[in-house]
Amino acid sequence: MKEKLITEFLGTFFLYSIIGLTAVLGGAGNMAPLAIGVGLAALIFASGHRSKAHFNPAVTLAFLTSKNQPTKEFIPYIITACLAAVSAAYCVQFIQPEAIAEIKLSALGLQHKDDFQLIPALISEFLFTFALVWVILNVAVAKGTQGNGFYGLAIGFTVAAGAYSVGSISGASFNPAVNIGLFIHQVIDLKILITYSLIQLLAGFSAALIFKCIEHKEAESCSIES
Amino acid sequence: MKEKLITEFLGTFFLYSIIGLTAVLGGAGNMAPLAIGVGLAALIFASGHRSKAHFNPAVTLAFLTSKNQPTKEFIPYIITACLAAVSAAYCVQFIQPEAIAEIKLSALGLQHKDDFQLIPALISEFLFTFALVWVILNVAVAKGTQGNGFYGLAIGFTVAAGAYSVGSISGASFNPAVNIGLFIHQVIDLKILITYSLIQLLAGFSAALIFKCIEHKEAESCSIES
Amino acid sequence: MKEKLITEFLGTFFLYSIIGLTAVLGGAGNMAPLAIGVGLAALIFASGHRSKAHFNPAVTLAFLTSKNQPTKEFIPYIITACLAAVSAAYCVQFIQPEAIAEIKLSALGLQHKDDFQLIPALISEFLFTFALVWVILNVAVAKGTQGNGFYGLAIGFTVAAGAYSVGSISGASFNPAVNIGLFIHQVIDLKILITYSLIQLLAGFSAALIFKCIEHKEAESCSIES
Amino acid sequence: MKEKLITEFLGTFFLYSIIGLTAVLGGAGNMAPLAIGVGLAALIFASGHRSKAHFNPAVTLAFLTSKNQPTKEFIPYIITACLAAVSAAYCVQFIQPEAIAEIKLSALGLQHKDDFQLIPALISEFLFTFALVWVILNVAVAKGTQGNGFYGLAIGFTVAAGAYSVGSISGASFNPAVNIGLFIHQVIDLKILITYSLIQLLAGFSAALIFKCIEHKEAESCSIES
Repeated sequence: MKEKLITEFLGTFFLYSIIGLTAVLGGAGNMAPLAIGVGLAALIFASGHRSKAHFNPAVTLAFLTSKNQPTKEFIPYIITACLAAVSAAYCVQFIQPEAIAEIKLSALGLQHKDDFQLIPALISEFLFTFALVWVILNVAVAKGTQGNGFYGLAIGFTVAAGAYSVGSISGASFNPAVNIGLFIHQVIDLKILITYSLIQLLAGFSAALIFKCIEHKEAESCSIES
Repeated sequence: MKEKLITEFLGTFFLYSIIGLTAVLGGAGNMAPLAIGVGLAALIFASGHRSKAHFNPAVTLAFLTSKNQPTKEFIPYIITACLAAVSAAYCVQFIQPEAIAEIKLSALGLQHKDDFQLIPALISEFLFTFALVWVILNVAVAKGTQGNGFYGLAIGFTVAAGAYSVGSISGASFNPAVNIGLFIHQVIDLKILITYSLIQLLAGFSAALIFKCIEHKEAESCSIES
Repeated sequence: MKEKLITEFLGTFFLYSIIGLTAVLGGAGNMAPLAIGVGLAALIFASGHRSKAHFNPAVTLAFLTSKNQPTKEFIPYIITACLAAVSAAYCVQFIQPEAIAEIKLSALGLQHKDDFQLIPALISEFLFTFALVWVILNVAVAKGTQGNGFYGLAIGFTVAAGAYSVGSISGASFNPAVNIGLFIHQVIDLKILITYSLIQLLAGFSAALIFKCIEHKEAESCSIES
Repeated sequence: MKEKLITEFLGTFFLYSIIGLTAVLGGAGNMAPLAIGVGLAALIFASGHRSKAHFNPAVTLAFLTSKNQPTKEFIPYIITACLAAVSAAYCVQFIQPEAIAEIKLSALGLQHKDDFQLIPALISEFLFTFALVWVILNVAVAKGTQGNGFYGLAIGFTVAAGAYSVGSISGASFNPAVNIGLFIHQVIDLKILITYSLIQLLAGFSAALIFKCIEHKEAESCSIES
């Protein structure tokens, strides 16, 4: 399991580094969502074969729910993702101290603190975390796509499209580990960190249930329907 | 069939959500066509194996015409796509009520209502819906590309290129279900909704006929030529 | 052969339509090269299996030179590509007559007629047409990449990178058929049309020679070296 | 080996040409990192099957370290990459002499010479050269991804994401051969050329060690751990 955790750490570390440097610090302007999406695609292609490339506790929960992850790996995966995001956040802060000092809620497309509204933000996070997990389960564990070579692209592109869609509404995190990085960078406060994380986990859980139900249907009836 | 329809609903719902949030509300600026294209690619990769990932009545008509869709699925697929677009349109409206209130024909690159000219718009919709369906049939059902792993990219990229090409002329819908979403968002009126839908269905039908004819040629002669 | 020529016509028609609408008319701004690149990728994925998706006389010459094209198809392919570009140019002109009237050499990144210098432009066209043909031969006919599913991406991305590189120097045509479209749209004059076409054909021929030489080397010695 | 070196030369020549024309000369604005990333992807897809498509001495060192490169090819590969970058730099300079004359450290996102800070720049180069080599080894030589068709995309996208992340901090070279091109174009001076090259080689070496260790773990214990 050690190799899996090192791989998850590296992937999540670079994922949040890219997010912090392009979107939080605004270095990539309107290209940040695409930069994050293609970066994520690359990291998934590099680590999927070894650790399944979660980089995201909501994904780990969905893999557990759909019985694609051993229970004993659940907590270690989540701790690793959070540690990696924390490390990346401090690393970005070390590289660009002045830039970080200027951010508050103004990052990730949330141009003015006043623009932020919690309900639309939570719906946005739910919708696109759901989409993300639904795409992941379909390209990474569904029988119908076994052996495909597009999983990294599908997942990275979902994040890019989601970030262009709701970046200016919620900041487009879709990931409890990313929330922690955003919290360290003072993009979101503790209340948002907690509510985002809960809604993202709920979205991952829901997507996994629906996926499991549809996937099983082909063979037998599904408990939600019966 | 229930699993197919749920999958079509989810795919079309997210497709129009992305269109509404990035292009209609203008959240992604000049990146909207790319965001829609890569988002569509991801959604197709996630659902193609189960429902063929139409998300578009013009595509469903083309699959029927080229005998790649059972007749009994024709109406349910079209109703599902339209319902999904309606749901997504109201969902986007719920999340961003003020933003929606400001749009009229000004969205999707149609900067001024005066710029809109029906004939160029209809030609544009015909051309790129034709291209879209022609690409879809060639990457999704042609024998020569069987088992390929690029179908999602090919289709999503066609929409992106088409939207960059004619977004400022027609709004780049290429999809009767998307028309309904644009109508709810008051980007297009009822007359445009109907004419766009007819021309898109005609484009899908034409592309399917030409595809069928070329595809069959390899074995036997084609009725159009004889 | 009729199916191949119809396929080449459709592909080249849409390729120049996208070029005309995004780059010549400037509809896609700084995104035009990417729009053209991903559009080309999609068109190649849709037609490669049937016609090899040349869409470009310089590519047809390179296929002939490297013995990957029957001699009898050489002239029909070139005529088809040119006819398709002419049709697309007039189609774009019909859709956007006022926009077309305003262009001269100012299109395709050539902001001021004064900026244009023939020698740098010819070198640019040589270099990136060479790169384009070299990439095409390696992903479409080399033994080492047989059965790959990335050929469309590799070719489309080469054009995108090339257009970002030399769009402001030469207009980034890389294709004698595209030259004709640019000539109809008055982006280039007859002298540039002819010199561009010659240098592009030379680039395609050179790339094919080097490719053939390297490819054969694995088995036997190469005439250039001996 | 001659075919490999010609292939490496062509790939590195076009890679630095694209970098020079889009990023150093600023021709592609905010799209430069993407143009470089997709261009690199295309070049890798075109040459990977013949020469492994290093185009980068830090990658060559990593291949040697992880025992994926014969020792006798080490020096020739590095010399070839450097010669190609030098040729491309002078070629770009020949095409655009006035543009080149205006650059100093202001290129590649380093807007003002004063913004440049060596320590953050070195950390940035270390981090993303590490990521680049880690991705390359995992998609090009790891057993778990054998026969994949996404290697070019994964590598190109890593460079794009890295360039969007640290382009404004270090210039995003990640490649000692590219350093030489940047030096000729007076983007960096001799001190930066040397420190960048050392840190990039160290990053490549570190990534190769960690990769080797994780890869071997599946079978046996790893010397770093024991």
